[in-house]
Amino acid sequence: MRKTLKEIAQAIQGEVIGDGSIVITGVSGIKEASAGDITFLANAKYTPLLNTTAASAIIISKDTEPPATKAVIRAENPSLAFAKVISLIAPAEIKHPKGIHPSAVLGKGVKLGKDAAIGPYVVIEDNAQIGDKAIIYSGCFIGQDTKIGDCALIYANVSVRERVLIGNNVIIHSGTVIGSDGFGFVEVNGKHHKIPQVGSVEIGDDVEIGANVTIDRARFDKTIIGRGTKIDNLVQIAHNVVIGENCLIVAQVGISGSTIIGNNVILAGQVGLVGHISVGDNAIVTAQSGVSKSIPAGAMFAGYPARPFLENQKSHAYVHNLPKMFELVKELKKKIEELENKLKDK
Amino acid sequence: MRKTLKEIAQAIQGEVIGDGSIVITGVSGIKEASAGDITFLANAKYTPLLNTTAASAIIISKDTEPPATKAVIRAENPSLAFAKVISLIAPAEIKHPKGIHPSAVLGKGVKLGKDAAIGPYVVIEDNAQIGDKAIIYSGCFIGQDTKIGDCALIYANVSVRERVLIGNNVIIHSGTVIGSDGFGFVEVNGKHHKIPQVGSVEIGDDVEIGANVTIDRARFDKTIIGRGTKIDNLVQIAHNVVIGENCLIVAQVGISGSTIIGNNVILAGQVGLVGHISVGDNAIVTAQSGVSKSIPAGAMFAGYPARPFLENQKSHAYVHNLPKMFELVKELKKKIEELENKLKDK
Amino acid sequence: MRKTLKEIAQAIQGEVIGDGSIVITGVSGIKEASAGDITFLANAKYTPLLNTTAASAIIISKDTEPPATKAVIRAENPSLAFAKVISLIAPAEIKHPKGIHPSAVLGKGVKLGKDAAIGPYVVIEDNAQIGDKAIIYSGCFIGQDTKIGDCALIYANVSVRERVLIGNNVIIHSGTVIGSDGFGFVEVNGKHHKIPQVGSVEIGDDVEIGANVTIDRARFDKTIIGRGTKIDNLVQIAHNVVIGENCLIVAQVGISGSTIIGNNVILAGQVGLVGHISVGDNAIVTAQSGVSKSIPAGAMFAGYPARPFLENQKSHAYVHNLPKMFELVKELKKKIEELENKLKDK
Repeated sequence: MRKTLKEIAQAIQGEVIGDGSIVITGVSGIKEASAGDITFLANAKYTPLLNTTAASAIIISKDTEPPATKAVIRAENPSLAFAKVISLIAPAEIKHPKGIHPSAVLGKGVKLGKDAAIGPYVVIEDNAQIGDKAIIYSGCFIGQDTKIGDCALIYANVSVRERVLIGNNVIIHSGTVIGSDGFGFVEVNGKHHKIPQVGSVEIGDDVEIGANVTIDRARFDKTIIGRGTKIDNLVQIAHNVVIGENCLIVAQVGISGSTIIGNNVILAGQVGLVGHISVGDNAIVTAQSGVSKSIPAGAMFAGYPARPFLENQKSHAYVHNLPKMFELVKELKKKIEELENKLKDK
Repeated sequence: MRKTLKEIAQAIQGEVIGDGSIVITGVSGIKEASAGDITFLANAKYTPLLNTTAASAIIISKDTEPPATKAVIRAENPSLAFAKVISLIAPAEIKHPKGIHPSAVLGKGVKLGKDAAIGPYVVIEDNAQIGDKAIIYSGCFIGQDTKIGDCALIYANVSVRERVLIGNNVIIHSGTVIGSDGFGFVEVNGKHHKIPQVGSVEIGDDVEIGANVTIDRARFDKTIIGRGTKIDNLVQIAHNVVIGENCLIVAQVGISGSTIIGNNVILAGQVGLVGHISVGDNAIVTAQSGVSKSIPAGAMFAGYPARPFLENQKSHAYVHNLPKMFELVKELKKKIEELENKLKDK
Repeated sequence: MRKTLKEIAQAIQGEVIGDGSIVITGVSGIKEASAGDITFLANAKYTPLLNTTAASAIIISKDTEPPATKAVIRAENPSLAFAKVISLIAPAEIKHPKGIHPSAVLGKGVKLGKDAAIGPYVVIEDNAQIGDKAIIYSGCFIGQDTKIGDCALIYANVSVRERVLIGNNVIIHSGTVIGSDGFGFVEVNGKHHKIPQVGSVEIGDDVEIGANVTIDRARFDKTIIGRGTKIDNLVQIAHNVVIGENCLIVAQVGISGSTIIGNNVILAGQVGLVGHISVGDNAIVTAQSGVSKSIPAGAMFAGYPARPFLENQKSHAYVHNLPKMFELVKELKKKIEELENKLKDK
């Protein structure tokens, strides 16, 4: 976890400029970094941050002018080099469960991968499959025919229902529920009759899912979370939602049924989306927005109902200026009355 | 799960008009239907949808003109007939737990109904009662003196505290907590002292509760969820809330203490309600609204603070038109100055 | 749980004025009280409530004029006296688990305090410490090196990860997750790489945490919840958040990473706060507000983006008056045209 800058440079075949003896204790983005961190510069847009970042060292390209006051490592490809550094200075793993605890209840036909670890009081139903090196903490429930990929890490008290597919290297935090029934009813004479929810959920490789998240199974077909997408705590994902790759879904977001989210989308905290709409690739929705219509690719939306960010901001500015405006209109009214009187007099 | 239209018609004693050999694979509302679904028309308002619904077949009344392009079943009472069809083409049940798992911990005086199923590592405290044919998945906790009705279906890792009453045919999804203490404190010299929460929770027949929902017990008396009400994931229901029958409470709604909700109310996603107000029968509150005052029966409310839907929409329209309005006022100001100058000149 | 007013007066060495034989069944704040409750008056601001409170009896100071129609107890210090009464008439405790259930899985070096109670199927990892008289219900997970204080009460199915510190007299409701990884990633070439979250969580004495809450561990350092703070259900507290003492955090609030909350702060239901801001002591944020900038001590903020309460209310009033304003501007426009025509004519 503690490495000198020189040690890091050697590991990534880079060249130190500055003091190679400084000790690096963490990794971070260039904006969020604090003392002790190493960061990287891959986007010329952030070049001014070279001098202002609180990081102790920065990985830069061979063409970039190093800052006067900071130690750097010059590397062929700063992004790739930084990705290597992340795993290099990752902390010693906490001691995860090992082996199959004798209290684990394994159904008929359950297949456990090589070196999979199953904690106490885990229940795995018939014909479920657990991948190689997967780790499942105590109290988890894995439903029948569900398949969990290699190197999955599932913390305590997670519930995964039947026929769910979970990819490789997926991390799921405690209390999360995957594959619960979608919220689907038909009203017949004032009573809500349940529409069977017989679809499933499919979660791609490298997905991380926070604590106490809920992801409902599809009515038919699948609710899908694309590869590399990261989901924060207490997020609600309804039946038949499709989320693309490498999205960031921040805490307490709610996505209604059958809505489709593209790749690299960011939904900030507490955003809500109605059902049956789409959000294009690379779109960003700011915190607490309420999205009632589809959002085009690359757009940044805000507010309720969500609109293009600048438009929404302008609206806020106009509302802020209403007191002045009301004052002005009052004044104009008075002037008009004066003019009317003057004209009468003539 | 797969039936021909002819088979369905026979089961509901209806008459096929069109191709009886088509295969039906699902049920749905007339607006939400897709190919393979059967739906129904009970409300004349939706007659135009007969020609546009994506459903493969429709149950209609004997008086309704069948659409030119769709197979239908004519039935005495389309609503009742459709309710029958729902159970008819429901999927083969998943294999729920059967019997009492030897690892279940049953307290003194626990009564288990006939054919009740208790999964591994379930804990049922003293004097709790579980109804006939009820199914409780692994890892659930059922507190002392709690009573769970017949045919209840409780998924893994649900926690139900002491003295809670749960009706018949209730479904509770994983991770949900029922009967936790209400959030009640009295401030004495800057410290918050806990007010004992010694009431309970009562849940009517045919209620469905989503995943990771929280329903607090009352301070005294009972927090009540009326018969047939359906609650989506991650909903918060505070102490002493009373919810009527056949309501739909969509995901991430929060209802504050002692608020009273009538029958057939719809609260859309992420709505919040303050405490000690009431919402009348058949009222609808649109998504993300913040309700700070009582809502009359039959009303549709929206926005923050929530107001009648049309009023709120009009407000939004006015705000949208502010840029034009500011422009116009600027123009009027200029004209007035011109008029003033002209009058001075005279 | 049932005491006569006379019995209560004796216990707190106060003097009854009125009928000492009335039976008290509960405690409450003076505004929220109902029949059967005893309450107290400590703040002269609330003196008018002496005659209108629904409480059956009130503890007042020796200087306060007793109301004509209510029984009171006169006490030296009404606040302290009331705090005593709360514990005096608290209900008979429910029968919590006792002893160490044989199914509990205890790791190496686990230290259990005197009279600690551990329910069935609890898993406590290596070197964790549980305080004296602490009670841990079934299905809980306590991670390695975590320390839980004396008299803690942890309900069923709570998950506490490794190296978390929890104080004395802390109550945690079911389904809550403490110490899950913070939501921290660095984007490298379009992929989100996990930043190790190796910090911890520290929870002070006398904290209460609702059901299905999520509190993430810090990246480094600690996420901190100060002594005496009370957290409602389904709240999200991100990594590196610091919350002061005696705060009230109402249901479904979300606090983003590294935000700092002072002492005695109230965050009402569904409030969201961005990261890296601060909220001063004694500040109040009203329900559903979205806080994007720091809030000074003692302020009351509301709306989205959150502003001083009165300012926000004024804005709402202006928006409500827009229809009238649009009408007026239209009228002024017409009058100006008339004036212009008149001047032309001259």
